[in-house]
Amino acid sequence: MIADVFRYIDSHGDTFVHDLQRLCRQPSISAQGVGLEACADLLVAQMQARGIAAVLEPVPDGPPLVCAELPGERSGTLLMYNHYDVQPPEPLDEWEFDPFSATIQGGRLYARGAQDTKGNIMARLAAVEAWLRVRGRLPVTVKFLIEGEEEIGSRHLGAAITARPDLARADACIWESGHKDHRDVPTIYLGAKGICYVELDSHGASRDLHSSQATSIVNPAWRLVWALGTLKSADELIRIAGFYDGVVPPSAAEVTLVERIAASRDAEAIRRDLGIPAYLKGLTGVDLITRDLFEPTCTICGLTAGYQGPGSKTVLPRRATAKIDFRLVPNQRPDDILEKLREHLRREAFGDFTVRPLGLEEPYKTPFDAPIVDVVTETAEEVYGIPPVVLPTMTGTGPMHIVCGPFDMPAVGTGIGYAKGNSHGPNENIRISDYIQGIKHLALILERYAG
Amino acid sequence: MIADVFRYIDSHGDTFVHDLQRLCRQPSISAQGVGLEACADLLVAQMQARGIAAVLEPVPDGPPLVCAELPGERSGTLLMYNHYDVQPPEPLDEWEFDPFSATIQGGRLYARGAQDTKGNIMARLAAVEAWLRVRGRLPVTVKFLIEGEEEIGSRHLGAAITARPDLARADACIWESGHKDHRDVPTIYLGAKGICYVELDSHGASRDLHSSQATSIVNPAWRLVWALGTLKSADELIRIAGFYDGVVPPSAAEVTLVERIAASRDAEAIRRDLGIPAYLKGLTGVDLITRDLFEPTCTICGLTAGYQGPGSKTVLPRRATAKIDFRLVPNQRPDDILEKLREHLRREAFGDFTVRPLGLEEPYKTPFDAPIVDVVTETAEEVYGIPPVVLPTMTGTGPMHIVCGPFDMPAVGTGIGYAKGNSHGPNENIRISDYIQGIKHLALILERYAG
Repeated sequence: MIADVFRYIDSHGDTFVHDLQRLCRQPSISAQGVGLEACADLLVAQMQARGIAAVLEPVPDGPPLVCAELPGERSGTLLMYNHYDVQPPEPLDEWEFDPFSATIQGGRLYARGAQDTKGNIMARLAAVEAWLRVRGRLPVTVKFLIEGEEEIGSRHLGAAITARPDLARADACIWESGHKDHRDVPTIYLGAKGICYVELDSHGASRDLHSSQATSIVNPAWRLVWALGTLKSADELIRIAGFYDGVVPPSAAEVTLVERIAASRDAEAIRRDLGIPAYLKGLTGVDLITRDLFEPTCTICGLTAGYQGPGSKTVLPRRATAKIDFRLVPNQRPDDILEKLREHLRREAFGDFTVRPLGLEEPYKTPFDAPIVDVVTETAEEVYGIPPVVLPTMTGTGPMHIVCGPFDMPAVGTGIGYAKGNSHGPNENIRISDYIQGIKHLALILERYAG
Repeated sequence: MIADVFRYIDSHGDTFVHDLQRLCRQPSISAQGVGLEACADLLVAQMQARGIAAVLEPVPDGPPLVCAELPGERSGTLLMYNHYDVQPPEPLDEWEFDPFSATIQGGRLYARGAQDTKGNIMARLAAVEAWLRVRGRLPVTVKFLIEGEEEIGSRHLGAAITARPDLARADACIWESGHKDHRDVPTIYLGAKGICYVELDSHGASRDLHSSQATSIVNPAWRLVWALGTLKSADELIRIAGFYDGVVPPSAAEVTLVERIAASRDAEAIRRDLGIPAYLKGLTGVDLITRDLFEPTCTICGLTAGYQGPGSKTVLPRRATAKIDFRLVPNQRPDDILEKLREHLRREAFGDFTVRPLGLEEPYKTPFDAPIVDVVTETAEEVYGIPPVVLPTMTGTGPMHIVCGPFDMPAVGTGIGYAKGNSHGPNENIRISDYIQGIKHLALILERYAG
């Protein structure tokens, strides 16, 4: 019944790719405040060109939301949550192509944001376009909510939804992304880890000094190293008092999912591709997947102190900084973790550090028995020809709690990525064939979710 | 007897300052390979313009030496050791003026290298010029040995002196620098600490990854932090096995010097100026000076990992790097410390780190009873009007062992710096009045050391 829509998708692949290139060529780096308004404007123009009456919703002190609502023929409302901002492209010298050139080579499109997640935005728009052009109308009501601050913690999204709940309220939500795993099995996910991202500053003398003065002058880089050493020990245990409070082991249903994931995943192939001798703590199989999905983390994302150029400089730095990201699992709250971190530093005699929160988000879970879960799973099998792997949660973070929490709305993540898409790293890319397949998957979800 | 030479110095102050500005405006950053040959050429030209027959001595794989020998009227030969290279100027945004503008303001000359140590080169040249112009000849034979790699560990100097010992052989050596302390008391020093400067690299996956993968993928930043934590504990004790082997407490003569230094130094004023609440371990008085002069150090000079830009980026870095400087005291050998560091890392399960030595230098000591010590001390009192403080060693490092060791040559450091000269840091500067006084001191040393 949907063959006509699929034919439209197949015959318009080049246009869909071209439109995605245009969106990827517009930088939109929220961490650096680069190009966000221009990207929102471009996106609205691209939506309007498809007959989607998109509007900019201004956000005080933040980049605007891009919103739209299209009525459907039958009952039910699906929210398409997404974000138009991207991660910083650094380190630039590790890219094979300019990260904003959207270069196509070998059937892949390389760009910062290609996978995370402008490719998914354009896949959703293309699916809607196909329905509108072929049938004149969508089978189900669709809302778009596309923000510009996801990569820096969706700072203003909660307030915007509180002020305008109609922008997000729906029966279910298609979350921003998803990918095929190393064996090309599509994965969908039903939740998100939370995050508490902080920057720690350790301060020393009022200026950089000659390192010969290190006999008697405090070195903030040493104090940072010692402080970090108290946060997590080499056995990977996080040493902040109360950090694991409330963390629960996986349920029976979750264990079943984990076993299916472990059976499907070629962990050895992934390991070889990453160039590591083993996974942490030598984990394999079910234990490895369980840790990935259900364990919180404490990760040093950045370290900065003193001289970093070529060769040597004998300097005693005046400041040292660490960027730390805690990924949180259900029953951990980022504001609580932040307070426990501050208390920990005070107790360990590092209470003079500056602790700057840069992003706090709650974890979120979708119940397995929500109807949208079956729709996305079954349509994936039809389009991809193989049953998808269902992850109880992604290992990453998104503002699922902010968007879906107020409405107890189930959310399912599905998207066009693949295992070597390298989100957040250099040479981020998608395979164009996955992009076209993802558009079809979205088009089929629209039909099947309709009442 | 020297009034005529001093008059020449006083009446040519503007020229001496102008010549120093020219030298400072030529960048010569050995760590970055910037401007070294051009600086050597300029220096030779400046020396020849004074009637000093300077020559470039080529150094295989390194910047050339600038050398000269001028015969004296009486017996004795003094070596003037110095270096024309400077530290990197970074961080540039903390400079009030362009570091290579040699801007004069408030009686101070601001430039990278003004104090360390182009100001001292030009002071020595000016003293020689004054003698040559006023008397036509020097009282004592003077050699100049000016290298271009001091700030990166004088890598090729030892081989050059082995091949051409005549470039360095003398009865005594005037070392490159010295300064007035916080109370404006001139200090001279009789030795140098050694150094073992290394870069440590910790490696993770073959590319930067999304930080959500940190559940099971090694984080090289964490491993670097843990490894550094094993090198030195928060009580400032260096934990490398055998690190302190052979380190001796100060002799009775040294304790006497330390007591005089402690009585002269306003440690509280220095502390306030540095903006620190206390010295390490709460040290004061004699204990503080003893630690500064006789203790080795292990200093983090730089840390680099992951994302360092503004805001947050959730990245699991593929590499983390630390630059570490060990300052060594007599009986510690840099090659031995390097081997002990490697062994320590192996023992602590960090044997996979890359350990890159970037500079190894031995410590050196001049005996207190060498005639040059009395000459420099007594002439300092005459010129500065106050007895100098004699440091048994500087807290910093220089190639004293390389230059003086082969000849058992005593070396005394004296120079034109002051307590706020900020060597190696931003806004490095000298006071012009100190520069003129330092020229006179050098001129008087030349006369008094002559047999």
